[in-house]
Amino acid sequence: MHRTKVRIVEEALDANNTIAQANRADFERAGVTVVNFMSAPGAGKTSLLEQVVADIPGVRVGVLEGDVQGSMDADRLASLHVPVTQLNTDPGFGGECHLDANMVRSALDALPLSEIDLLVIENVGNLVCPAEFRVGEDIRVMVSSVTEGEDKPLKYPLMFRACDLVLVNKIDLLEHLDYDLDQFLYNVDQVHPGAERMLLSARTGEGIEAWREWLGDLVRSRQGAPA
Amino acid sequence: MHRTKVRIVEEALDANNTIAQANRADFERAGVTVVNFMSAPGAGKTSLLEQVVADIPGVRVGVLEGDVQGSMDADRLASLHVPVTQLNTDPGFGGECHLDANMVRSALDALPLSEIDLLVIENVGNLVCPAEFRVGEDIRVMVSSVTEGEDKPLKYPLMFRACDLVLVNKIDLLEHLDYDLDQFLYNVDQVHPGAERMLLSARTGEGIEAWREWLGDLVRSRQGAPA
Repeated sequence: MHRTKVRIVEEALDANNTIAQANRADFERAGVTVVNFMSAPGAGKTSLLEQVVADIPGVRVGVLEGDVQGSMDADRLASLHVPVTQLNTDPGFGGECHLDANMVRSALDALPLSEIDLLVIENVGNLVCPAEFRVGEDIRVMVSSVTEGEDKPLKYPLMFRACDLVLVNKIDLLEHLDYDLDQFLYNVDQVHPGAERMLLSARTGEGIEAWREWLGDLVRSRQGAPA
Repeated sequence: MHRTKVRIVEEALDANNTIAQANRADFERAGVTVVNFMSAPGAGKTSLLEQVVADIPGVRVGVLEGDVQGSMDADRLASLHVPVTQLNTDPGFGGECHLDANMVRSALDALPLSEIDLLVIENVGNLVCPAEFRVGEDIRVMVSSVTEGEDKPLKYPLMFRACDLVLVNKIDLLEHLDYDLDQFLYNVDQVHPGAERMLLSARTGEGIEAWREWLGDLVRSRQGAPA
């Protein structure tokens, strides 16, 4: 009895998880797979989406774009003729540094859930807080650019641990950097043993086909899964 | 009367500013100039400090190193024989994404204030929240790497507005990037007209002498200023 009571109190305290579960239930009812997409500022989230959102075979993609303010990334993606919804966090004090479940819930009515199979939620650029707040996603993907240095998994372990896939971006710059890719991958395994990873360059297109296929396979595996 | 009352209430609410002012008074009494040093993860804060902290003529430097967890950057700087104090934010929920005045206050006793002229507080890598919390600094400096893209001032305006100097790092990579430096500088002026900026590369050393001189001049100008 006592343990049960404690558990209930803890859950009651975590309003974010309660709302995230409600979001996820709504996404599942609509048959939409949801990716929470995260990285540091400038790692290349939007560029990596530009390369794939319009042409994943058999998968209709929508994007929920999170930014402190402005709609620059949303405008870039909307020009590809995919539905994009902008969510700005600046009504908070100086701008919230992450999306939370309640912000995503406030955007639900604006999302064309009946017209998409995959919703990518592009989070605010930040390696700390976005990993702490579930928003109703099925899966979490992060981007780490090789220009950020190989120490990042050790400095931001929660983010690397929270994600199911690590996209290592800007590999076209490897020859111009003092960056030890093997050390980076070793560091990823230190905080998240066996985490799936993919090497790519949004600029040259290297690895993009594998990223596109990964998203397509994700949606098909969930559509085929028992409800 | 009414306006005075409102002002007092607002100030009472902002405990962070109260503590920041107390920190600053302590730093001033000790004759220490304080820089709050900020950037996105991997922009090169530590590398830019490594290049200068041990050899600013006539200026003894100390570093307060802020990280979610670990002490990798502190270890790098301590190897240069400057006093380094580590402040970890992970006792908070999943790790705080910024330093605040109270965290810095908790480190005051560990800082060798009588032995330094300049304290650089290396903040947690993040372009949002660190700009919202004064910690007792005299001046704020940020690093923006050219690999992050020229749109960052428009997406994180508070950070660019809060800083007195913008260090544009990794310019050795310009020839390998689709990055419009003029557009970046134009965007800086959009959110912070006339903000001081400096182009440099921690890797090649270009611009480092100007950065070293800027820090030396800063300390001398404050030592010469009337108390």
